[in-house]
Amino acid sequence: MTTTEPRTQKMIGASVLRREDRRLLTGAATYLDDLELPGCYEAAFVRSPHAAARIVSIDTSAAAAMPGVLGVWTGADLPEIAKGIPPKVVHPQLRDVPRVPLPADFVKFVGEPVAVVVATSRYVAEDALDLVEVEYDVLPAVSSTGAALAASAPLVHEGAENNIAIHVVQTAGDPAAAMDAAPHRLRERFTVARGGGHSMETRGVAARFDPTTEQLVVWDTTQSPHYVRNTLAYLYDMPEDGIRVVAPPDVGGGFGPKAQFYGEEAVIPWVARLLRNPVKWVEDRRENFVATMMERTQVHDVEIGFDDDGHILAIRNVFEHDQGAYCAGLQVPMITLSTLPGQYRIPNIHTELIACYTNMVPTSSVRGAGRPQAVVAMERMVDRAAEHLGMDPVEFRRRNLVQADEFPYRVGLTFRDGSPLTYDSGNFPLLLEKTLSAFRYEEQRSLQAAARAEGRLVGIGIAAYVEGCGLGPYEGSRYRLLNDGTVLVTLAAAPQGQGYETVYAQIAADALGMDMDLIRVTTGDTSRIPFGQGTFASRNTATAGPATLQAGQEMRGKLLQVAEAMLKTSAASLTIRGNRVEVTDDPTRSVSLRDIAGAANVGKHGITLAPGILPGLETTVYFAPERAAYASGTHAVAVEIDPETGAIDVLRYVIGHDCGNVMNPMLVDGQVLGGFAHGVGNAMYEEPFYDETGQPQSTSYLDYSLPSSMEVPPVELVHIHTPSPLNPLGAKGAGEGGTIPVPAAIANAVEDALRPFGARITSLPITPPKIVDALSTDDLDGTGPWHG
Amino acid sequence: MTTTEPRTQKMIGASVLRREDRRLLTGAATYLDDLELPGCYEAAFVRSPHAAARIVSIDTSAAAAMPGVLGVWTGADLPEIAKGIPPKVVHPQLRDVPRVPLPADFVKFVGEPVAVVVATSRYVAEDALDLVEVEYDVLPAVSSTGAALAASAPLVHEGAENNIAIHVVQTAGDPAAAMDAAPHRLRERFTVARGGGHSMETRGVAARFDPTTEQLVVWDTTQSPHYVRNTLAYLYDMPEDGIRVVAPPDVGGGFGPKAQFYGEEAVIPWVARLLRNPVKWVEDRRENFVATMMERTQVHDVEIGFDDDGHILAIRNVFEHDQGAYCAGLQVPMITLSTLPGQYRIPNIHTELIACYTNMVPTSSVRGAGRPQAVVAMERMVDRAAEHLGMDPVEFRRRNLVQADEFPYRVGLTFRDGSPLTYDSGNFPLLLEKTLSAFRYEEQRSLQAAARAEGRLVGIGIAAYVEGCGLGPYEGSRYRLLNDGTVLVTLAAAPQGQGYETVYAQIAADALGMDMDLIRVTTGDTSRIPFGQGTFASRNTATAGPATLQAGQEMRGKLLQVAEAMLKTSAASLTIRGNRVEVTDDPTRSVSLRDIAGAANVGKHGITLAPGILPGLETTVYFAPERAAYASGTHAVAVEIDPETGAIDVLRYVIGHDCGNVMNPMLVDGQVLGGFAHGVGNAMYEEPFYDETGQPQSTSYLDYSLPSSMEVPPVELVHIHTPSPLNPLGAKGAGEGGTIPVPAAIANAVEDALRPFGARITSLPITPPKIVDALSTDDLDGTGPWHG
Repeated sequence: MTTTEPRTQKMIGASVLRREDRRLLTGAATYLDDLELPGCYEAAFVRSPHAAARIVSIDTSAAAAMPGVLGVWTGADLPEIAKGIPPKVVHPQLRDVPRVPLPADFVKFVGEPVAVVVATSRYVAEDALDLVEVEYDVLPAVSSTGAALAASAPLVHEGAENNIAIHVVQTAGDPAAAMDAAPHRLRERFTVARGGGHSMETRGVAARFDPTTEQLVVWDTTQSPHYVRNTLAYLYDMPEDGIRVVAPPDVGGGFGPKAQFYGEEAVIPWVARLLRNPVKWVEDRRENFVATMMERTQVHDVEIGFDDDGHILAIRNVFEHDQGAYCAGLQVPMITLSTLPGQYRIPNIHTELIACYTNMVPTSSVRGAGRPQAVVAMERMVDRAAEHLGMDPVEFRRRNLVQADEFPYRVGLTFRDGSPLTYDSGNFPLLLEKTLSAFRYEEQRSLQAAARAEGRLVGIGIAAYVEGCGLGPYEGSRYRLLNDGTVLVTLAAAPQGQGYETVYAQIAADALGMDMDLIRVTTGDTSRIPFGQGTFASRNTATAGPATLQAGQEMRGKLLQVAEAMLKTSAASLTIRGNRVEVTDDPTRSVSLRDIAGAANVGKHGITLAPGILPGLETTVYFAPERAAYASGTHAVAVEIDPETGAIDVLRYVIGHDCGNVMNPMLVDGQVLGGFAHGVGNAMYEEPFYDETGQPQSTSYLDYSLPSSMEVPPVELVHIHTPSPLNPLGAKGAGEGGTIPVPAAIANAVEDALRPFGARITSLPITPPKIVDALSTDDLDGTGPWHG
Repeated sequence: MTTTEPRTQKMIGASVLRREDRRLLTGAATYLDDLELPGCYEAAFVRSPHAAARIVSIDTSAAAAMPGVLGVWTGADLPEIAKGIPPKVVHPQLRDVPRVPLPADFVKFVGEPVAVVVATSRYVAEDALDLVEVEYDVLPAVSSTGAALAASAPLVHEGAENNIAIHVVQTAGDPAAAMDAAPHRLRERFTVARGGGHSMETRGVAARFDPTTEQLVVWDTTQSPHYVRNTLAYLYDMPEDGIRVVAPPDVGGGFGPKAQFYGEEAVIPWVARLLRNPVKWVEDRRENFVATMMERTQVHDVEIGFDDDGHILAIRNVFEHDQGAYCAGLQVPMITLSTLPGQYRIPNIHTELIACYTNMVPTSSVRGAGRPQAVVAMERMVDRAAEHLGMDPVEFRRRNLVQADEFPYRVGLTFRDGSPLTYDSGNFPLLLEKTLSAFRYEEQRSLQAAARAEGRLVGIGIAAYVEGCGLGPYEGSRYRLLNDGTVLVTLAAAPQGQGYETVYAQIAADALGMDMDLIRVTTGDTSRIPFGQGTFASRNTATAGPATLQAGQEMRGKLLQVAEAMLKTSAASLTIRGNRVEVTDDPTRSVSLRDIAGAANVGKHGITLAPGILPGLETTVYFAPERAAYASGTHAVAVEIDPETGAIDVLRYVIGHDCGNVMNPMLVDGQVLGGFAHGVGNAMYEEPFYDETGQPQSTSYLDYSLPSSMEVPPVELVHIHTPSPLNPLGAKGAGEGGTIPVPAAIANAVEDALRPFGARITSLPITPPKIVDALSTDDLDGTGPWHG
């Protein structure tokens, strides 16, 4: 079942305006730093200036004596929390080196916190930082995967033979034999630079120990309040019930790095409890550059084997992944490992990961999460193969796509939970054709030819991807009918701009058969719903969504059961209209939702519930999907290169997108466009530099380019909808697809623009100097090969 | 089914030591005034010095200008909360005059708050009270039911014809005809004085508006946090979700008055939100005397008709009930109305209530709640009838008791929810005989005869009762398996010393089949469980108890379902031992509860739950009993009167008690003994005086007698156990039975002691002056009738 239109029920599928926007657009949003916590102290962290060093001594006495300073703690002062932070995704072969909140002996990257100062204000705390004397014994560092994997590399973590965190191979078919036998084989090495999340709101933690409830309340700009609570409970060796984690509803962006747990998040609540006073720390932008996790750095050695007709026979990809100084989890490289084949039917696959430790800030997911790199490896080689055969790259793709009747499609690899990698649904050919049609592919090729004839460097790039999303383990939704006849829907998930207050109210409205204005959605507070996972991996619509649908249907049943008893009729004969439940055939017989709430709560006399009345109109459903759903997309782009400056002008960009059934098309479009901007950054702008000692060279936006609204080009969106059979909403994920193929598509287009010169683009981002380097100035005198 | 031994499972029925006691006995308990709320302001209330007055003007300017005063508000300043507080139990015929938090126009009793001062400390606030100038136009007041019901009585509330709040009659059979035809008829008028709850911790409220969650957090020494939340939501016109009410676990006694809602509870949170700063008010003892609700005052005109064989043919009781200045609910007089017939099979009943408003603090439930008065009316008349026939009063009772095979027994009256008044189970004859046996009734009669022969005033009294308890509408229990493998059980109910942390852990241990030390019970926080009723009417073991049993059984099922999947076996083959679930036949195969919690929460890889694993190990059950269960008891007492001082010496006191199945015999005994002390107070000590203008004359323990441990006599307890068929625990209520028959039993004994003189005891409490009055000194010269 594929449609090209979103499924529209009453509210599901409607482009409802975002409830969040009024407060956001009027400056009335509450971010972590806006929280009113009377008497709150503020913290600042002493951070390592070295990428690798032994801590010889730390003298905090002068800082501690400074007026306004409440306390200074090093790792040695806080042995209670000197535990490793468990990585999120692990593997039996992982050499796990988790970080501790404040290391006492060694620092492994520049920016690693070694002490915390708490003072009456951030100003005082920052001044006191300068008084903390740390003596370091500086050690040699490695600041690239290449350096880390070199034979005589310094060891990031002692006690090991090398810097490898994990080395795993997955195969499907017989890739070695197939490659040997392939009529055509091409190889290339691609490097993808680091890139960050760069949320507008940086990380931040505030905490208050509430002696009245003996509860530690932690406000955290996290994507996963329950994960933070679980991790704190583990680190503090406390029952999780003693910790309440709240993600403010207006967290200003997440993008992955806020789905991780950082040392600061363990230190701040601990000292707040020690001091029995609220303590807050908000990361500044410089800290964000050095201490917030990044992603992307990978080096791919990829080889493709294919026949004369353009059928891919084998793919082999060996890639290095930069894990950073510690292991926050293997989610990113494991995703890269399995994302390689993408939309293509490839009988023989070799995909091999070598993850290594380096002396840089640890890496973890950033929107796209390991997929953009895999798509670069695959889609760049598809273009190379087409070029090799003199075939249109679109035609090459058509010959290799998994077909619409092949789902569920087993790729032949293994998913990272150990199950067979299986695509649930999709329609890649339709997606390609719809994208090309909107892109006006043939017309673009004509324009390209005309431009070339004028000596202009115009190129066209295509890139396709699949995205495993809607992951488990589960997500929950809890409904309650309130005294005023409104329904409160509580999600464990914490949004960072996705519009949960709107879209889950839409789902709830359809589930309840009620008007949306009677429904309120609240999120991100572990005290409101006990279990949850969080917002990452484009997972919530496909997990919290079905939970919200099912819990709402249960709640409707309960509501009508009470109304049935109150109206002395059968539930089947009732209709909810506005804030009343009425007998469908006789609307003069009705009862208000407010009265239903009262009847089921305090009862009529406050003594017994009337016969048939249920106590406690609350429902909770946790939905655990069997496995990941697969969204997909195909991007098409035309670029023109300025040969003198190396500037890339995006002439036309079309995104074809399939995230299954859509809850709110406007919000999905917003996600895709936001993701696209992120992809543009990875493709052309973002690149944090580290020198060979591991010293970061770009720690402000003066040294680090992000695309702004001026740089992000216009884009056209087209959608198809292949519902996932894995959940009753048929939903997949929409949060990352916009990002994933952009570097590959733009690189393909740039290389296509430079094809007349045979210039190769193998390093991302594609910055003007790289293009200028790739072009020999001799070729620019009007006698270049495309004139020939 | 009746047993004389408690049912013993593993933990249910065991006398487990109270978990609460260590902190209570070591002074480590946290009461409301101990809560740490940094920067908290304190409030004090301006209270009316008049029992009835029109407020002419209030000038708060001088108080407001005082340094340290944050604000002063009158009723006129807070029109938003100028709503009537809804009475708890109502009736269609009730002329409802609910109170408003701060009245703006009239005051109706001495102590009624008219303004609130908030200052940096209670000292400042109290000083500022003196600067609030209130001009009153004093009006005539009524301070007794007699005065209120007099023909030309001043009206407590204008706009009515009289001071009657409700006048209702219930009958069974044909009482008028039966009474006319009865061979013997006796009449008497009994008066019962007011009496209070006198909890060691007075009332108190603290509130903090939490701008971070937009939630108003209210700490309240209440028996019913959910009722407080519901009432605040109604008064503030807010969704209940915006208000979190927490009853600290160590509320120092409730006894009924803290199950009500008071104006102060509406004012404090409101001004805390206005000021955006915590505000606290703790009632002082003088305020407790004038502003906390009391109970008891009733005047009973009772007539009994019986035949020569001692069979009761008819009872007719018309009683006046003092509602106080406003109607907090009709629970007390409605209970009196239906409690009259007690343990006796009476074919013809006339029970008639005239509740009236007076200019005294409103009344509501105090431990016993309307039953002690009904038992006085009934049991005193039983003794009079026996005396009239020259029959042993025990023998008279035996002839009239409802028999063990007559349950469920329909009394012929109506319960206050409109259903037929039905006793679920009991064994009154066994209860009587067991009590008499322990009391050694015949021996006591011999001793009495011997004492009389010596000229000593010794008397024996018996009194029996039934107590409707275990009332709905419902109560809830929520379980959660925590990360550390322990189970958290959350109750809506808030204890005030009943030992919930212990007894519900016992129930949970049996329900889960787990060790009690792995179970923690938390109570009294509306944020932890959304619906609940509270602790009153001896209801929780029979409502929260079954909810805890059933939710625990569900949780055990879920736990074992997860363990089954983890151990690849069937749940039926598993045993929980300590903190592990093991295969019964092969204990080497086991999994820890901690691992089960982890598997069901974050999963093995943090990606998908393993097959068969349930997400979210939480269960919630609300148990709604069909109707009230009936506990019962029989008390026997021997007293000796000092004729010179009028002092009563309790020679022997035996309590026979049946509250169905017992969860923790030691705790039940504690409840019964505590209740007994309360009954002793009502029988012999407690009496608040008001002058004819409604001015209270006893506002400290210098003027008001409470029995201390020196005054409460030793008592012996015997139990029988007739399980209630209305809930799976077979539980009834145990919190009030100790109190109910004590005034009647002691009055019967005292009158028996004075019987040789024909002296009559018709007024409670029986204080020494009343006894001295009742005895003519001429009778004390050794020539009295018992020598004759």
